[in-house]
Amino acid sequence: MSVHNVKAIVFDTFGTISDWRSSIAREAQIVAKSKGLNDFDGDAFARAWRAGYRPGMAPVISGEREWTPIDTIHRERLDEILPQFGLDMLDEAERDRLNRAWHRINPWPDSIPGLLRLKKKFLIAPLSNGSLTLLASMAKRAGIPWDFVFSSDMHKAYKRDPRVYQNAIALLGMAPGEVMMGAAHNDDLEAARAEGMRTAYINRPTEYGPDQVKDFEATSDWDIIVDDVEGIADVMGC
Amino acid sequence: MSVHNVKAIVFDTFGTISDWRSSIAREAQIVAKSKGLNDFDGDAFARAWRAGYRPGMAPVISGEREWTPIDTIHRERLDEILPQFGLDMLDEAERDRLNRAWHRINPWPDSIPGLLRLKKKFLIAPLSNGSLTLLASMAKRAGIPWDFVFSSDMHKAYKRDPRVYQNAIALLGMAPGEVMMGAAHNDDLEAARAEGMRTAYINRPTEYGPDQVKDFEATSDWDIIVDDVEGIADVMGC
Repeated sequence: MSVHNVKAIVFDTFGTISDWRSSIAREAQIVAKSKGLNDFDGDAFARAWRAGYRPGMAPVISGEREWTPIDTIHRERLDEILPQFGLDMLDEAERDRLNRAWHRINPWPDSIPGLLRLKKKFLIAPLSNGSLTLLASMAKRAGIPWDFVFSSDMHKAYKRDPRVYQNAIALLGMAPGEVMMGAAHNDDLEAARAEGMRTAYINRPTEYGPDQVKDFEATSDWDIIVDDVEGIADVMGC
Repeated sequence: MSVHNVKAIVFDTFGTISDWRSSIAREAQIVAKSKGLNDFDGDAFARAWRAGYRPGMAPVISGEREWTPIDTIHRERLDEILPQFGLDMLDEAERDRLNRAWHRINPWPDSIPGLLRLKKKFLIAPLSNGSLTLLASMAKRAGIPWDFVFSSDMHKAYKRDPRVYQNAIALLGMAPGEVMMGAAHNDDLEAARAEGMRTAYINRPTEYGPDQVKDFEATSDWDIIVDDVEGIADVMGC
């Protein structure tokens, strides 16, 4: 089997390991309640915030904009949507605190059990667009047992820029086929496969809720196709 | 107190967190015994190997030699000393395995208890000349509870090159005074202080055994001066 040589497994984080939508909705709902908003829709707020994520990274990936950390991209979108949701009264400290809700998002229920199994046999790490402090804080708070962290600021690039995958492989000092990418997003796996990495698709059809338009299923013959992180551990014999 | 603002503590690894001398001596002794060498001095072998460490990095730090991973520097020195110790019969696979003894060195007895306490309040990571795979493997094997790993190949530079400290601070997105360097080597702390970092000296007067010529004590007024990692946890109120 092609995954026999795998020594390290790196994971997309937002959506694959962590359920950003329910976590952001919950934190936003608490803030809205503290401001006396009674008809605030936390889930819609989370989705609206997230809708600025790819457009926010796009000019960085294309080279039109210089390297910009993910906290800045999150914050720009936050400032943009707060008025629409009746939260434009938030002051600087409140906005900063809410922006860091992305440092506190919770894992899906299967993520930690699956990672604990995989960790016994493989080096495991995020290969995420998050910043180092975001990813390390999230893992520490939730108990995600990474062996180390790859963050976007280490590469000064965002996925799907090929340099992210190339740099991860180089830092590991491994052959591309010894590294597996786990993700709930087919285009992330396409980019990983293009660099010679092994691929594991984890189906997360509820990630975006009513806004989900793709990634309801694997669209290619990825090395592993499963419904959760424990499924990867099953296939890998952990 | 000047350490009040600290949010992250990064540590030198070889000698500060881990006792390379006894670990390397033990592995070399096992190899020598398997080859029928009865008067092999494992401790002398470990010290001789380590004696090539700083000279091996020096041309990289000065810019005379291009970036060279630490495994290569370890291996070059290993090949150099094997004949002197009667081990020139080791084949490629045996040399490679022995070279990776640096991935398996054990922590000092106080390191994990101290780091577990510090981890509750601070982000903790190595800021080491080791490679990513070396540091992650070492931590995984021994249970060193890093939140993430800074490795020399992320900076493409070795300490005491200022870029190592600057890059760590930048990746954390923190003010220099929010990051503390913990080390058993005064010159490592000098380089960290020059970048504005806080400093913690951990006394390891037996690190080099009979070869130790310095770092028997703190040579400056570092922010914290203690005998072990638990001592830092005491001072930091963990």
